[in-house]
Amino acid sequence: MEINFLRNIGQKIFKEISLVKPQFNRTSLGRGASGDTTFPIDKLVEDRIIEAFEKENIKVNLISEEKGENLVDSSYPTLIVDPIDGSKNAVSGIPFFSTSIAIADGNTLNNLKLGYIINLINGDEFWAIRKDGAFFNGDRIRVNNATSPIIIAFEASSPYKAIKNIIPVFKIANRVRCFGSTALDLAYLSAGALSVFIVPTPSRIFDFSAGILIAKEYGAIVTDIEGNSIENLPVNFDTKTTLLVSTSEILHKKILDLIK
Amino acid sequence: MEINFLRNIGQKIFKEISLVKPQFNRTSLGRGASGDTTFPIDKLVEDRIIEAFEKENIKVNLISEEKGENLVDSSYPTLIVDPIDGSKNAVSGIPFFSTSIAIADGNTLNNLKLGYIINLINGDEFWAIRKDGAFFNGDRIRVNNATSPIIIAFEASSPYKAIKNIIPVFKIANRVRCFGSTALDLAYLSAGALSVFIVPTPSRIFDFSAGILIAKEYGAIVTDIEGNSIENLPVNFDTKTTLLVSTSEILHKKILDLIK
Repeated sequence: MEINFLRNIGQKIFKEISLVKPQFNRTSLGRGASGDTTFPIDKLVEDRIIEAFEKENIKVNLISEEKGENLVDSSYPTLIVDPIDGSKNAVSGIPFFSTSIAIADGNTLNNLKLGYIINLINGDEFWAIRKDGAFFNGDRIRVNNATSPIIIAFEASSPYKAIKNIIPVFKIANRVRCFGSTALDLAYLSAGALSVFIVPTPSRIFDFSAGILIAKEYGAIVTDIEGNSIENLPVNFDTKTTLLVSTSEILHKKILDLIK
Repeated sequence: MEINFLRNIGQKIFKEISLVKPQFNRTSLGRGASGDTTFPIDKLVEDRIIEAFEKENIKVNLISEEKGENLVDSSYPTLIVDPIDGSKNAVSGIPFFSTSIAIADGNTLNNLKLGYIINLINGDEFWAIRKDGAFFNGDRIRVNNATSPIIIAFEASSPYKAIKNIIPVFKIANRVRCFGSTALDLAYLSAGALSVFIVPTPSRIFDFSAGILIAKEYGAIVTDIEGNSIENLPVNFDTKTTLLVSTSEILHKKILDLIK
């Protein structure tokens, strides 16, 4: 499988979404496998991705926010999908959400092989190929260790508890951001727009898989918020972890010290 | 002056900006009147707005983030401009920024007459005409007092101090957002996407003028974070205030109680 196969899927979804105006359909379709509400836009995009693989007869195991887990054969690659990362933005009319697709060729997160994210508002594309680097709209991206200004992004599904736990971190922040899309946080960090990204409450495998491969190939440091490696976590629907992603070792250490 | 005059300006800027790719020019042009760094995109947009008024020979007093204050004649209306609200997003490549234009026909904030905001990524337009309501892409918008889920947005130029001051507020939040554009926070709140918007550190007149008129005409409650009216603040370059904007009286009171 080539990255261009994922890019074709993403670009088709981008074109279709720009016509359907997601914010005008907030009707819930019930709850997806993850427990979150499924909206028409989530289902539409998930269907498009699965159809594309079926049409080319590419056999995969599936981990997806809406449909859940379908592990068919351990010899197949695993497709990890968040059809709409930033669903709440999408259905409320805030133009900041994306599609996130990752491919793993093994049972743990260090087997992530391809990561692809497309911003469904302006078509910005981010991708990474294991050991072959990270790309933003076709250009290779590589961390430059610039340390100023320090812009810290976070996501928090339980805001009060989460923010209370990380508040010392903001002492070194020039700016803070909370956009509501983990995939785009990781993507724009890898395009040089953010210094640090923190998820103090557990993030789900389909939210972060494509993004952490892009961040790692960009040259960022990726651990949980205690500084532990997440490389050996299983590629399963239930895998969740906190995240700390920084653009330099020094910054990463500083943030870990502040959280303690 | 009609709202369509402002819309024409905004739409022209939107077209021009989509060609210049702001993130590829982070070269500072020095500091604007507000003390913030002026980037080429700030200057370009400010020039376009001032040119449009000059071309039509419309006499105004000017308050603008970059050029500062030029109060010519108290009988003229005052044009309050933030050419790029969300400059830091713009120059770092994060697609979330806007142009904000307000017109006042008197010396205090209760004399705001027209407010216009355009999202420079997707062209979403928000406007308000005093006593004639608020509009999103041409449709009238009106608060519906839905209280769930509670999505709280904030902006903070000094993140640590600011967040520490408002942290109790997050106890009632289902989600938190910090997008980095006060004008768009107020705009999307008025389109029904946010429940509460808080700026605990002083926000500047050009950041919020168009947005608070849109929020007020939408039916939101607008005060400072102590609950005081901001209606009698002067229309001057140096006017700054904290902000608390809520979509219902009940929610506004609850937030004020939590901040105390």
